[in-house]
Amino acid sequence: MFPYEHIILIEKESKIPVYRQIAVSIIHAVRNGTLKAGTHLPGSRELAKTLGVHRKTVIAAYEELDAQDWIRIVPRKYVAVSERIPMLNPQKWNAPGILTSYKNDLNVPFRIIEENATEDSGIAIPDIVIDDGHPDIRLSPIDNLLKTYRSLTSRKYAIKSANTGTAQGALRLRQELVNYLSETRGLNFSAHNLLITHGAQMSIYLSAQLLLDHSSNIIVGKPNYPVANKAFEETGAKIIEVNVDNEGIDTDAIEMICKKKKINAIYVIPHHHYPTTATLSAERRMKLLDLSKRFSFAIIEDDYDYDYHYTSSPHLPLASANHNGNVIYIGSFSKMLDPSLRIGFMVAPKNFIMQCTAFRKIIDVSVDGYMQNALAALIKDGELKRHLKKAKKIYHQRRNFLDKLLEEKLSEYISYILPTGGMAIWIKLKPDLPVTRLASNTKLQIIRIDVEQNAFRFGFASKDEKELEQIVDFLKEQLR
Amino acid sequence: MFPYEHIILIEKESKIPVYRQIAVSIIHAVRNGTLKAGTHLPGSRELAKTLGVHRKTVIAAYEELDAQDWIRIVPRKYVAVSERIPMLNPQKWNAPGILTSYKNDLNVPFRIIEENATEDSGIAIPDIVIDDGHPDIRLSPIDNLLKTYRSLTSRKYAIKSANTGTAQGALRLRQELVNYLSETRGLNFSAHNLLITHGAQMSIYLSAQLLLDHSSNIIVGKPNYPVANKAFEETGAKIIEVNVDNEGIDTDAIEMICKKKKINAIYVIPHHHYPTTATLSAERRMKLLDLSKRFSFAIIEDDYDYDYHYTSSPHLPLASANHNGNVIYIGSFSKMLDPSLRIGFMVAPKNFIMQCTAFRKIIDVSVDGYMQNALAALIKDGELKRHLKKAKKIYHQRRNFLDKLLEEKLSEYISYILPTGGMAIWIKLKPDLPVTRLASNTKLQIIRIDVEQNAFRFGFASKDEKELEQIVDFLKEQLR
Repeated sequence: MFPYEHIILIEKESKIPVYRQIAVSIIHAVRNGTLKAGTHLPGSRELAKTLGVHRKTVIAAYEELDAQDWIRIVPRKYVAVSERIPMLNPQKWNAPGILTSYKNDLNVPFRIIEENATEDSGIAIPDIVIDDGHPDIRLSPIDNLLKTYRSLTSRKYAIKSANTGTAQGALRLRQELVNYLSETRGLNFSAHNLLITHGAQMSIYLSAQLLLDHSSNIIVGKPNYPVANKAFEETGAKIIEVNVDNEGIDTDAIEMICKKKKINAIYVIPHHHYPTTATLSAERRMKLLDLSKRFSFAIIEDDYDYDYHYTSSPHLPLASANHNGNVIYIGSFSKMLDPSLRIGFMVAPKNFIMQCTAFRKIIDVSVDGYMQNALAALIKDGELKRHLKKAKKIYHQRRNFLDKLLEEKLSEYISYILPTGGMAIWIKLKPDLPVTRLASNTKLQIIRIDVEQNAFRFGFASKDEKELEQIVDFLKEQLR
Repeated sequence: MFPYEHIILIEKESKIPVYRQIAVSIIHAVRNGTLKAGTHLPGSRELAKTLGVHRKTVIAAYEELDAQDWIRIVPRKYVAVSERIPMLNPQKWNAPGILTSYKNDLNVPFRIIEENATEDSGIAIPDIVIDDGHPDIRLSPIDNLLKTYRSLTSRKYAIKSANTGTAQGALRLRQELVNYLSETRGLNFSAHNLLITHGAQMSIYLSAQLLLDHSSNIIVGKPNYPVANKAFEETGAKIIEVNVDNEGIDTDAIEMICKKKKINAIYVIPHHHYPTTATLSAERRMKLLDLSKRFSFAIIEDDYDYDYHYTSSPHLPLASANHNGNVIYIGSFSKMLDPSLRIGFMVAPKNFIMQCTAFRKIIDVSVDGYMQNALAALIKDGELKRHLKKAKKIYHQRRNFLDKLLEEKLSEYISYILPTGGMAIWIKLKPDLPVTRLASNTKLQIIRIDVEQNAFRFGFASKDEKELEQIVDFLKEQLR
């Protein structure tokens, strides 16, 4: 007889019921050709004896296999592998195990993505992480948000319309944002002009997908937020880099380029450029809007950290000017509250928002409506504003404190311009000190290092004064 | 003098401070060319009198404008609009207001997306919603999940690594899933083979983007889950439809196609096909795996409602067989727990997962790590399993109850095959009853109607017996 005890592996310790282990083993044996179509299986009594299990267990396994059409039971006669099981090619299948790669013979037209992608389980968490400008989640009213979230779910909020038609975002949140963005940013629009996304990056991605294709040109700052560039590259569009200086992106250079070729879109971060933190000057703002009108290009305005400006009130966004629908305005709550809160938004003309919404459904069919409604309540209650006011004051102090520390302890190694706002300082190392030295230290992780500019971003908002001092002391040790 | 009282609009009731209202009005006037570069502004005393505000308020406004470089203050001499403000073209700008559309002259290469996209604020919520197979969130342990979520955030979970390297998903959740999917589905893999996504749709989108381009061919069932088709269309690939009958997709037809042309991928929902609910038979499963090997195509296996199978244990997924890395396995917690819980997963070879992770960062830079860790705890505690066991029992009863109702009350109008699992029944109307009749009723919303098949999906899982009876009675009224 067939050595069933070798193909049917039973682990008594397993959480999987024994009858199901037997069924699964037999399915595997059929699948890999060990048991062929029509093969008679032992009677339940016999197999039970072979395997050392109760007969009822084998009967349950056979019933299971019968229900799934793997075998045919002819009562009182025999049990056999279904005749309808196709004959397999006599090729040898690979041993099972961890799937490491596609076979070459698949000819799968993988796209090449350059980034060295994933973190590994093995990597140790470094002692010191310098982020590129995160909020301090210890200050966030996230617990209030979650309380509301829980009360919404326990009231079975919106059960009728759960999962339907929410791809544009919860209406309550959009309505709150209409008021909130009008008050804080001078933006005049309606809930039709708003799409709620999973964060600023999704807004960038959607804009890129709708505005660009392989025949397009897009202008970005140099240096620029690299993940935005990747989103633009994905469309096949040509990326044209324009220098960013202390007044932001060079609008004269943009004009010269526009005179030579068709530009479809420009991506800017006017408030505090990433990574350099430069604020786009008033005249360049005017000029950019004018160019957009003259040369008919869209402006993708990424305003991820609008609220944190220290030397004056925040600068009004480009989107608050008359712009004939040319400006797509992108914001995020991840920077206001918590990077884990994956809620961002996009303000744009209605036809653009409609197409983005349709496209977004292809990527992500639904949204977390509870969380969006909880956030709407947070805005309505004024809690968001209170939080931002408090956070701004603290971040301002932290910026000044870090400025003082850098001046005192690192001035011989670095240079920087104190940013007028935002959550990070862009620090350039002296030319004889390569920034790669900081990148190779396993105790230290710096999220945004720019080798070409020999610089890195020092996010100060997420750290208190003690932590800032520790980090600066650590850096001093590394640099000297 | 310039009629400043007409360009500076002050609303005393507004939540925006008056000094900022003044500043914003002046910025708007500069931007639209009303105030030109170099124009002298009235002194603070004079303007305060004109506007009927305190002089300090005007001074604050001027300081604000100065800080943002819109004006230049020469103390004791004059205040003027910055000379650096560029001259505008004398074109007339459109009046501000709700942005409705891009101008034609933008030449923006919008892609055409056919779907009639967004829900509107004006639409009334219908009395009756027939979903296409949602879980009953009243049964979900979502409150437990949120309790864990809150405790994680209040412990400032993972503050050090917040926002870094989590695009593949929280390691704890991936490790729990390795065990869970091995136990429940016989899948053998490691945490490297897992990507956590925002739901099944994102997994489909990412797979499509990596596997397909305009030169590719993909086979899908007819009818099929339409949003998946859209994700495939987006890549420019050719979609080839193959009939789905009561045993699932027709594998003989697939073989014939493969002999004629290169097929890059096949999208299947073997457990309960969408929308028809057919389960792919054992022999077709074998055949499909064999074809995949012979003709080197990838199988995208969407298994969104694995856990709900009533006539036997769930069928093992294709991905549990040896498949040389050809199968990409997609699942979701939205169907297990709550459509608002946007957590899905993908199991695939490591090199594929790495590329998906890199691509996913372009769409969505980070994830909600708290929620993922809370879900990991729910799985570890066995709570997910307990929930699924309970839910399966209840959904099974509801399926049977709906079957009885349909039989009793609607049998003269409809036909259907009782599904062996899942959360919906695929109901075909008799040929003389067009399903459009149900689509046009404003009191009723049916999520998935298929005009070509004259059929719709009746999700039974989300409704209790009383609700099911109400809906069937309502349908009877509409159909007779």
